[in-house]
Amino acid sequence: MTSPLPDSDALFALRALLGERLSTSPAELAQHAQSETHVEARAPDAVAFPQSTTEVAQIARICAAHAMPMVGWGAGTSLEGHALAVHGGLTLDFRLMDRLLAVYPEDMIAVVQPGITRERLNLDLRDTGLFFPVDPGANASLGGMASTRASGTSTVRYGSMRANVLGLEVVLADGRVIRTGSKAAKSASGYDLNALMVGSEGTLGLITELTLRLHGQPEAVSAATCGFPDIASAVNCVITTIQTGLPVARIEVLDEASVAACNAYHATALPLQPQLLLEFHGSPAGVQEQAERFGEIARDFGASAFAWAHLAEERSKLWRMRHQAYPAILASRPGATAYVTDVCVPISALAEALLETQADIAASGLPGPILGHVGDGNFHAILLVSPDDPAEDAIAQGLTRRMAERALRLGGTITGEHGVGLGKLSLMAAEHGAAWEVMGQIKAALDPMNLMNPGKLVPQI
Amino acid sequence: MTSPLPDSDALFALRALLGERLSTSPAELAQHAQSETHVEARAPDAVAFPQSTTEVAQIARICAAHAMPMVGWGAGTSLEGHALAVHGGLTLDFRLMDRLLAVYPEDMIAVVQPGITRERLNLDLRDTGLFFPVDPGANASLGGMASTRASGTSTVRYGSMRANVLGLEVVLADGRVIRTGSKAAKSASGYDLNALMVGSEGTLGLITELTLRLHGQPEAVSAATCGFPDIASAVNCVITTIQTGLPVARIEVLDEASVAACNAYHATALPLQPQLLLEFHGSPAGVQEQAERFGEIARDFGASAFAWAHLAEERSKLWRMRHQAYPAILASRPGATAYVTDVCVPISALAEALLETQADIAASGLPGPILGHVGDGNFHAILLVSPDDPAEDAIAQGLTRRMAERALRLGGTITGEHGVGLGKLSLMAAEHGAAWEVMGQIKAALDPMNLMNPGKLVPQI
Repeated sequence: MTSPLPDSDALFALRALLGERLSTSPAELAQHAQSETHVEARAPDAVAFPQSTTEVAQIARICAAHAMPMVGWGAGTSLEGHALAVHGGLTLDFRLMDRLLAVYPEDMIAVVQPGITRERLNLDLRDTGLFFPVDPGANASLGGMASTRASGTSTVRYGSMRANVLGLEVVLADGRVIRTGSKAAKSASGYDLNALMVGSEGTLGLITELTLRLHGQPEAVSAATCGFPDIASAVNCVITTIQTGLPVARIEVLDEASVAACNAYHATALPLQPQLLLEFHGSPAGVQEQAERFGEIARDFGASAFAWAHLAEERSKLWRMRHQAYPAILASRPGATAYVTDVCVPISALAEALLETQADIAASGLPGPILGHVGDGNFHAILLVSPDDPAEDAIAQGLTRRMAERALRLGGTITGEHGVGLGKLSLMAAEHGAAWEVMGQIKAALDPMNLMNPGKLVPQI
Repeated sequence: MTSPLPDSDALFALRALLGERLSTSPAELAQHAQSETHVEARAPDAVAFPQSTTEVAQIARICAAHAMPMVGWGAGTSLEGHALAVHGGLTLDFRLMDRLLAVYPEDMIAVVQPGITRERLNLDLRDTGLFFPVDPGANASLGGMASTRASGTSTVRYGSMRANVLGLEVVLADGRVIRTGSKAAKSASGYDLNALMVGSEGTLGLITELTLRLHGQPEAVSAATCGFPDIASAVNCVITTIQTGLPVARIEVLDEASVAACNAYHATALPLQPQLLLEFHGSPAGVQEQAERFGEIARDFGASAFAWAHLAEERSKLWRMRHQAYPAILASRPGATAYVTDVCVPISALAEALLETQADIAASGLPGPILGHVGDGNFHAILLVSPDDPAEDAIAQGLTRRMAERALRLGGTITGEHGVGLGKLSLMAAEHGAAWEVMGQIKAALDPMNLMNPGKLVPQI
């Protein structure tokens, strides 16, 4: 599909609705053509900054009348180019819809607008004794996190966005506003549209409100790092820990190259060997019991150099280091850009998937540290390529494809949490077969003009 | 829609495929027109007993060619008439597809056929150290449980079918076979068709295989009953327990009338007052800690008459009594039939919803014991009506409707676990508004001839 010139009638109608909150300035367009990773930029024709659901619905009706694509934009932290307007059109930036609308402490529920970021939300919740657990590392917006079915370090204990979104308000392609889910803990009433919208990457509608499941701040928390002689031992320790049913709140792996990059970036001194980063939540006695049980398992796999972080400040430092692993690794090859690719496999296949990937990367000659949320069977490779070298680009694409194919061969999925975006679209048929066609049928039913984030997720006709 | 005569060409083709495994005997048709509750019977034109996915796909192609409705049948334990062939056609009884196909103990996953029952599955899993937690009381089939998004006593801890179905194989209306989900713990790859199929009540396809998440059999288990001076105290104790974050494995309420019926049916001697039935799972120390914490909360709400069930045999007896509460209550009014209706509300609204419902029932003059999975905010009323009395029927319908409307007013859902079936169809518009139309659009996209369990779940055109 070639991009036609922007529809001036559409822009005129949008301008009449939004005034200054519609921008076509080159700087604003360029800012919404940026991606955090290797994905090539493409600018929208205009950027809207809506202030309410009503306004989003009005925008949708104008866009529908002029066949103008609509793409949602949260915090711009996608790693796979989800929010890039590949067919032009209008980007809806939700930064003005960023409020915590209500907290229901007795039901452990919060209602938020899509533009609020997860750090802001947890700051606002600080005094309630509750928190929102989904933690993809980046300070993403909740709308974006729902759209990509995000997860992160604490998903092994608290679940991903799939488990923590109770309800949504969604504006459809024709401007209809629907509500999915409820404030009840469960329901058997009709199709699970809530789950259908979560992870649909903006291709079915624009999320304008989220009802989120909160969790009690744990009474006691303890965190630790521990080093292992090799990555296989670290991963096998994780597998045993999960199979034992130990309710770890976080269990992350960093390979040796990731540890080196983090040490250099943060001036820390983690021992230069594969590391597990852990956190335990519970009652004081429960946390102690979990830590002891984990210690026994870890020692069986040759762990040493346990370092406990009992103070809140030490733990913040530890998880800041983990969350900034991406910039740290990026900084380890100055001038590089990155393919940040993720897969998820059944836990029994984790060691095989990870070791084969590591060997494949080593053979390629590209730097490619590995790290991940291994408690879920989910890991990432950060492939560092020179932006001007097509040969390196081709190598990275091959590694990414083989990593996804390996995950499928082992019963897993091409992406555990980063989503499909532009980077994984060519792998969808391999994962889903005829079910991918079904996704296309659903898309066509709800968005027959293909206006919602076109060029993404479903088969492109 | 009037039911045309059975299509003899379709039956001829099905007979050629299935031989003796296609039945049109009056006894077989009558058996598949039965429902456990008040819902009026309607017989299918024929009953098929497929043996494989391939056969189900062949059946679907024959039915599609002759515009013959297809309705799945598991164990026949639905409480809302889900599996009744209201427009005639073919009932597919999955009793011959009832095998446990594979267990992957390291991944805590089982792959099963849809006809296996939950009791059979757990019997087969006994020696693996693993179990499947979803427990709707009745010995339902796993295919039926997925189709209705079933939950039950242990959902407060382990989640409903939504959380415990990792993957499905589904035969669509045109005979295509798709696979949804994977064996990975999470995925961000495309629309969550898995979640869309779970709870779709056979209106989108026929489930021919399920990949299930198993859980480790807890190291220690303890169960208890405790009595409360009134239902409000019992419910408020539940609310506080859940809000405290205590990870109870089961927390059930029986009102006084339910206790009386259970005592009469089982010759037990539970004190005649509202009772909570509890179970705790964990390490020996963890279970003890949970039980102590619960005890403190319960005493604050006036609990007395704690009776602990430490032995496996005592616990079996306790939960058998709970699971047979329905026949027990049915027996308390000889000759009666029942409306077994359920709603689910946010936990903060549980006391209000339950007390208002109790008062409404008391004012109606019908016997209507209340019990439920109160840890989820989910409860049931079992309204006992004389089958030959239209006046009582009208009263029960009014109570059911008001109970659902009350749940909606309080932010809940018209059904927490029994599903929509025939009994709740008229309430779907009130719960979902425009989102119900969206369900209809999805149905029309995947089943344009309306052959999959027609007359259910979506708007009827």
